[in-house]
Amino acid sequence: MKIQKVEAVPFSIPYSEPLKYGLRGFLKSADHLLIRVMTDDGITGLAEAMPRPIIYGESQKSILWAVEHWLAPRVEGLPLYALERIWDEIEPLRGNNTAKGALDIAIHDALGKTLGMPLYRLLGGWTDRIPVAWMVGQKATEEAVQECVEVLEKGIRSFKVKIGIDPEKDVELIGRLRKALGDDVTIYVDANQAFSYDEANRFLPIMESEGIALVEEPMPTWNTKGRLRLSQRISVPIIGDESATTPSDVEREIDLGVISVISVKTPRTGYYQSRKIIHLAEQAGLSCIIGSQADTDIGALASAHFGSAFKVFSHPAELTFFLTMKDNLLETPPKIEDGILVLPEEPGLGTRVDEGKIEHYRLDK
Amino acid sequence: MKIQKVEAVPFSIPYSEPLKYGLRGFLKSADHLLIRVMTDDGITGLAEAMPRPIIYGESQKSILWAVEHWLAPRVEGLPLYALERIWDEIEPLRGNNTAKGALDIAIHDALGKTLGMPLYRLLGGWTDRIPVAWMVGQKATEEAVQECVEVLEKGIRSFKVKIGIDPEKDVELIGRLRKALGDDVTIYVDANQAFSYDEANRFLPIMESEGIALVEEPMPTWNTKGRLRLSQRISVPIIGDESATTPSDVEREIDLGVISVISVKTPRTGYYQSRKIIHLAEQAGLSCIIGSQADTDIGALASAHFGSAFKVFSHPAELTFFLTMKDNLLETPPKIEDGILVLPEEPGLGTRVDEGKIEHYRLDK
Repeated sequence: MKIQKVEAVPFSIPYSEPLKYGLRGFLKSADHLLIRVMTDDGITGLAEAMPRPIIYGESQKSILWAVEHWLAPRVEGLPLYALERIWDEIEPLRGNNTAKGALDIAIHDALGKTLGMPLYRLLGGWTDRIPVAWMVGQKATEEAVQECVEVLEKGIRSFKVKIGIDPEKDVELIGRLRKALGDDVTIYVDANQAFSYDEANRFLPIMESEGIALVEEPMPTWNTKGRLRLSQRISVPIIGDESATTPSDVEREIDLGVISVISVKTPRTGYYQSRKIIHLAEQAGLSCIIGSQADTDIGALASAHFGSAFKVFSHPAELTFFLTMKDNLLETPPKIEDGILVLPEEPGLGTRVDEGKIEHYRLDK
Repeated sequence: MKIQKVEAVPFSIPYSEPLKYGLRGFLKSADHLLIRVMTDDGITGLAEAMPRPIIYGESQKSILWAVEHWLAPRVEGLPLYALERIWDEIEPLRGNNTAKGALDIAIHDALGKTLGMPLYRLLGGWTDRIPVAWMVGQKATEEAVQECVEVLEKGIRSFKVKIGIDPEKDVELIGRLRKALGDDVTIYVDANQAFSYDEANRFLPIMESEGIALVEEPMPTWNTKGRLRLSQRISVPIIGDESATTPSDVEREIDLGVISVISVKTPRTGYYQSRKIIHLAEQAGLSCIIGSQADTDIGALASAHFGSAFKVFSHPAELTFFLTMKDNLLETPPKIEDGILVLPEEPGLGTRVDEGKIEHYRLDK
């Protein structure tokens, strides 16, 4: 049950179309890394690390360096179950949260496979099926409406719309979506901090009247006083994402009192730190939502296990992004039917990497 | 892996001598309950429930009722791993924390036995050996000193002294203990809320000069302003015990800023709520100590697993009380050598109840 080897494989898989978000966010492919943990019993655990330079400052190169030169040498030889010791070893490396988070998930996968237990059970066992939300990037109104109508036909009933560049257009889009999708569907928005206080204060009440359920990071996270003022003005609950990337962030946000929902992203906090976050959130009476890091099917499945394990995740999970990729990496990608992702019954994450595909998409050979 | 049956067996085992603590605490026997969880695979998990009417309001009778009429019917049929669902089912019963905590631990034991993993590994795997502290009840000075000298010879190097009835006598005892035990030994005190503010404010600085390491609940927990004032006056860190019996208590104490150390007692918070407590504590920069609930060897072993699993337990654990009982209940009681309790390598708690002994000490047959 010992960690024998940790490896990181950078890869690139194109998205079907580029994802635009916030003022400057632009992603045209998943330039991520596959993290693998091999044990002395011949078990392999896996996870995905997602560099997001403009959010976390990490790159494919920095993650590769962190895994090979810091994390691997410190955890090789430790038992899989010794997560407290593992985190004690890796924590002194400042930041590098997505590298640490992916290592943590790969170790959990190997542990679940060793014990013969699916991860959602090992973590808390709340449910084996989790409703999912669809994410709509910034795009032409007509195109966005058409996309959502098609997605609704497939049974997904929660839609997150990326807004923030042009509030007038955002308001129009939300009205059009409400009309096209009907009153029973959940629509919520994510500005990725793009509004000023004045824009948010003026336009969010209008969006509220169209029945948006939640708003994520309406304005810059550094603007603490402005965020507090805004939260006291609007009724729609605010999701914290970029403002809540670590347990310390979450503690500060709880004290500040702006947000009602925490976006938990296992790529940046692993399972280990994510568990701390949900405990802080629960005690403060906040709910949680599984956020997307534009993951491939590997990352989506890892987050699905975490989101299914705990009751505190009371919102549909942002787990559909991998459906917009040109290809997948798992032998059996997660199945989403009628808006529900059903967790596999097999141990750990419940699946393996398709070796042919990783050979095809890897960047280091 | 399903819970088939939950049972509670009240028992009574005499202590070698009565334990006196605080203003009115007096225990002459462990009138506790054995909680057993049987699964459809023939596994039995066990735990101990400790009624403490003057602390939690629960009695042997109330725990028996809670298990038989509320908890058992709600968890029978659920899978062992579904702790989030189990707690969701049992939480609506207000209070009854030691009944719930024992059920949670018994389920964890059954889960560990099913997965083939010792609980300290399943929980976090920090270490397999935990230093322990000795607890000295209120008694004649000479007798207390003699007892501690004998215990020190056995290798235990941390001593918790129950104080609070007569501060002059307490100061004398601490001075005598320091002289008899030497400067390298840890001495700390527990007043169980017995001092007034004025007594605590006057006598704790004197005890500090004798090198007490910590003070537990110096004065009434309801006296919030007084506790805050005291904590700003003294240098010795304060342990929260009766003030920190639930995650909500701990949240309030963190906000208040009086305590530096949380006494985690798995009998009142199980593993599940205890984990929330240590996450809150860690994020607030507090350390934790495993507290004693005057447990038999069953409860001591359960707390030893939890205290070994997590790094945050940086103080010797209060796990020696069972050594002062006239008898034990486990086939193999925990071994303490040279001041260290070494966790068993067997799955779950790592041992079984001695059926002959439980038959002998049970009160219901």
